Order: sequence, then structure tokens, then C-alpha cells
Amino acid sequence: MIGGSIAKAARLRNLCEEIVALDREQNAVNLQLAMEHGVIDRFYTDASAALTNADIVIIAAPVGAMHGIFQQIAPFWRADCLYSDTGSTKASVIQAAEQAFGGAPPNFVPAHPIAGAERSGVAAANAELFTNRRLIITPLPNTDANKLAELTRFWERLGSSVSEMNVEHHDTVLAATSHLPHILAFALVGLLGRKDEQREIFKYAASGFKDFSRIASSDPTMWLDICLANKHELLPLIRQYQAELETIAQMLAEDQTEQLFETFTYAGHARQRYLDQLDD
Amino acid sequence: MIGGSIAKAARLRNLCEEIVALDREQNAVNLQLAMEHGVIDRFYTDASAALTNADIVIIAAPVGAMHGIFQQIAPFWRADCLYSDTGSTKASVIQAAEQAFGGAPPNFVPAHPIAGAERSGVAAANAELFTNRRLIITPLPNTDANKLAELTRFWERLGSSVSEMNVEHHDTVLAATSHLPHILAFALVGLLGRKDEQREIFKYAASGFKDFSRIASSDPTMWLDICLANKHELLPLIRQYQAELETIAQMLAEDQTEQLFETFTYAGHARQRYLDQLDD
Repeated sequence: MIGGSIAKAARLRNLCEEIVALDREQNAVNLQLAMEHGVIDRFYTDASAALTNADIVIIAAPVGAMHGIFQQIAPFWRADCLYSDTGSTKASVIQAAEQAFGGAPPNFVPAHPIAGAERSGVAAANAELFTNRRLIITPLPNTDANKLAELTRFWERLGSSVSEMNVEHHDTVLAATSHLPHILAFALVGLLGRKDEQREIFKYAASGFKDFSRIASSDPTMWLDICLANKHELLPLIRQYQAELETIAQMLAEDQTEQLFETFTYAGHARQRYLDQLDD
Repeated sequence: MIGGSIAKAARLRNLCEEIVALDREQNAVNLQLAMEHGVIDRFYTDASAALTNADIVIIAAPVGAMHGIFQQIAPFWRADCLYSDTGSTKASVIQAAEQAFGGAPPNFVPAHPIAGAERSGVAAANAELFTNRRLIITPLPNTDANKLAELTRFWERLGSSVSEMNVEHHDTVLAATSHLPHILAFALVGLLGRKDEQREIFKYAASGFKDFSRIASSDPTMWLDICLANKHELLPLIRQYQAELETIAQMLAEDQTEQLFETFTYAGHARQRYLDQLDD
């Protein structure tokens, strides 16, 4: 979905002569579909053939697959090519690159488009997925300045607003806004799904539940990888959330109406601050 | 918002000759706005004037206000009028009626439209709010069958799909799909809002966060009332949720990848069952 969306967006904006995909044999059906829809021009399951003459290589894969992918493409790595990725966690991707290359190559520019959907595969690809969305680049001290500028231009031409952030800060921020909410949604939908009354529960769920639970439909492989890759940021946040929830449960148990009202009001104001900066 | 939406919907479908609002003096601005927009024909802060000649009275107020409202309107209660409400919890509303009248009157038919929005006030009223939404009636053993049928027809003509449910079952089901998710959203947005990095956290939040957190913008007074009114259903559910979250945290801490994958996959399938029945 992400790879296909980048391909569609890049073609729509005439950023490329040719788009070539590299994937595993078992994804051939998805690749064939991408060919038929004109999303890509050619595809390979062999890294050597796919990477020849590439100017820019973007690795769009679950973060747990990055180490294997770096190893697969390392023999064909070229100094004049720009390499990047779309991983939702950055420390783990950079570590995978360091392991595969004995140090992250200066022409690998780690990046993360803050855009996505709960659907997977090329059929869900969308040329406007990145329009007016943020893209975070987490450069390393040895990252090549020209390659960094080149990747920035690429994403800006896809419509994204590009920021730079250090690796740890990226992983901290994303744990809070993305990884933790996914865990909370998986937990809620899992809990309700196991209840005897689940048919009735789901039947009478309102639109609030639909929105709240949407991210529980996200790809489990991708999210397993993200949660494991960023567990050192995510686990302490889950602990903080448990404490927050326990505080609210206590207020409720003890009918502390004033404190509960303040808690709900504070959350409403905090969300308003979030909405306000969306308009900035 | 709910009262205004019922008024707009009823007028649009020619279900009434005249729409009269009763509210507190401090809400006069909202009522004036409702008059100017043609949502209501007249408004009063005096129950006697408002209730004279009414055929149907619908109480749309936070559930914590129901007892006071029943007491206010009790002196003008008429056997030929149909009374109902829109409260999100039903046991507490029925208890309030029992206290005010020494037993719930047979012409009070408790109801709950499963529709809403995080906004309040008549400016947010929407004539199509109830179209294709569910409405639950929780009749009591002594509820008048004709009044029940009358209320059912009324809501069906507003476009709702009307079901009957017993009171306790309603409160159990709604605690799971509505009240618990609201608590979880309030807790998350409150937690993140207190962090030093909140500006950055909110700046880089993706659409998943926007959807997940939407219900945290709900009216705090209304939700304080709902949570307190339904705390005997809600608290055990919060406890179950805490256990679920702890299980996931343990899996993550101990790198139990297979169990985590199964947990995420199960949640995704459960949400698919929810989506499937939406189409039924």
C-alpha cells in the first residue's frame, strides 16, 4: 500500500522515468496487479535485476523485514544511488542498516511518512496519500547532505511537509501518537470480540466506536514489528497509560465527581490544542 | 444538539404542528438561536407554559439532570401525553422517574438514540442525525403498549431502526461500545496533553490519532453523568480492559511474538465481524 502509493504519486507528478518493484516470490500476485494497473513498469524477485540503474530506492516493508532486505540488497549497493525507507520506527531500521553494512551508509536517508491506512496491498494504493501529510527524516551524523536534500525535494514534490528529527525523538513521539493508540484499540476490540454478547455489542455500537476501533484493523504483521522494534519507548508509555486509567477508575469508584469532571475537561481541552495545530 | 436534531428532523418530516422547548434560564442564548434558525417555534423556562397541550414530550438532557427534570414536570404530567427521553444510560433514568413519581408512569417510554457527535448545542443540530441509526427502547412491565407503539412510529419516521431491549442489557452493551471507549480516549488524550513534548506529539499525530481521540472532545458534563450513572457496568469493564492491556504489555516485555501476532490478528478479525454486521 505504501510502496504502491509512492509509485502512483511519483508517476502522477512525473518524478521518474521508470518504476521497478522488488518483492518476494510470494507477493507476485500483488506485483502482477501493480503492473496491470500501471502502478509499476516492471517487477523482480531478484535484487540484482531490480536495482540495476536505480536512481532512488525506497524500502517500504514491515520494519522487522528491514535487516533481511538490507542484506539482500547490500551486494548491489551503489554510492551514486539514494536509498531511503518508510519504516514507522527509526532506531530499529538504522540498527538493521548498521548491522548489514557495518555502519549506516551515508547515502541511506531514513524517513517516515506520517500517512497510512488500515488496508494493505497495491489495491489500496493512493496517489494522494502523502498530500498535506508530514514526512519525518531522521538523518544521522554521517548522512550525505546532498542525498538528504534530494529526498526532501522528492517528498515535497509528493505533497508532503518534510521535517527533520533525531532518531530517538521520532521514536518517542510516534510511540505516543501512533503505537500506543494501536495497542489500546487492539486491546479493546479483542476484549469485546471475546464476549458472549459480541454480536449484540457490535450491533449497537455507534460511530464513536467505529472511529475508535479503526486502527485495530491494521495489518498485524506490520504492527507486531513496530511494537517489538519500539518496545523500549512503548512499554513505559503503556505503564503510564495504565496508571492514568487506574486514576480514573478510582475516581469513578469513589464518586469523585469534581476530579472526574476536571479530567474529562482537561482531555477535551488537550484535544482542542491538537485540533488547533492541525489548522496551523 | 440531540433535542435540536429531533426538532429539525420532526419538522422536516411534518411530524408536528408546533415545537416548543423547555430549558433553564442560563440556556436562553441557545434557545434564542434555535428560534432564529426556525428549529423551534417557542421556548419557555417555565414548565407549566411549555407543557400545556403537548402531545409528545422528549427529554434530551444529561442523565444526571433527569431527576430534577422529572420533578419539575411532574405537576403538569398528563395521562394522554407520550413522554420519552434520549438518555445514554437507562437504569439511572428509570430510577429517577421512579423516585419522582413513586413508580415509573406507564406513559413514560425510555429510549436511547445511538447517534451523536462530540459537539453540543443547537448550532450542531442535524435533521439527518438519526437516519439509518439505531434507537433502543427499554420498556418496563407497566409501559403502555399504545405509547410504546407511538414512540416506535415516531422514531421510525425520523429514519431510525428501532429495537427493544431490557434495561440492564442496554446498560451492559452500551458500557462496552460507548462508555468504555470514551474513558479510554479521555485517559489517552489527558496523558499526552500533560507531556512536555505535547506540541510535538500532537504536531506529528496521524489520522489514526484524530479518529481514535475524537470522542475525547465529547461534552464533559454529559459524560461525567453517564459514567457515574452506569458505573456498576463500567467499572468491571475497565478492570477487564486493564487485565487485557496487562496481558499485551507482558507479551511485549517478554517478546512473545507469536501470542502478540495472534492477539493483533484476533482483534482485526473481531473488527471485521463488526464491519460485516454494519452492512447487514
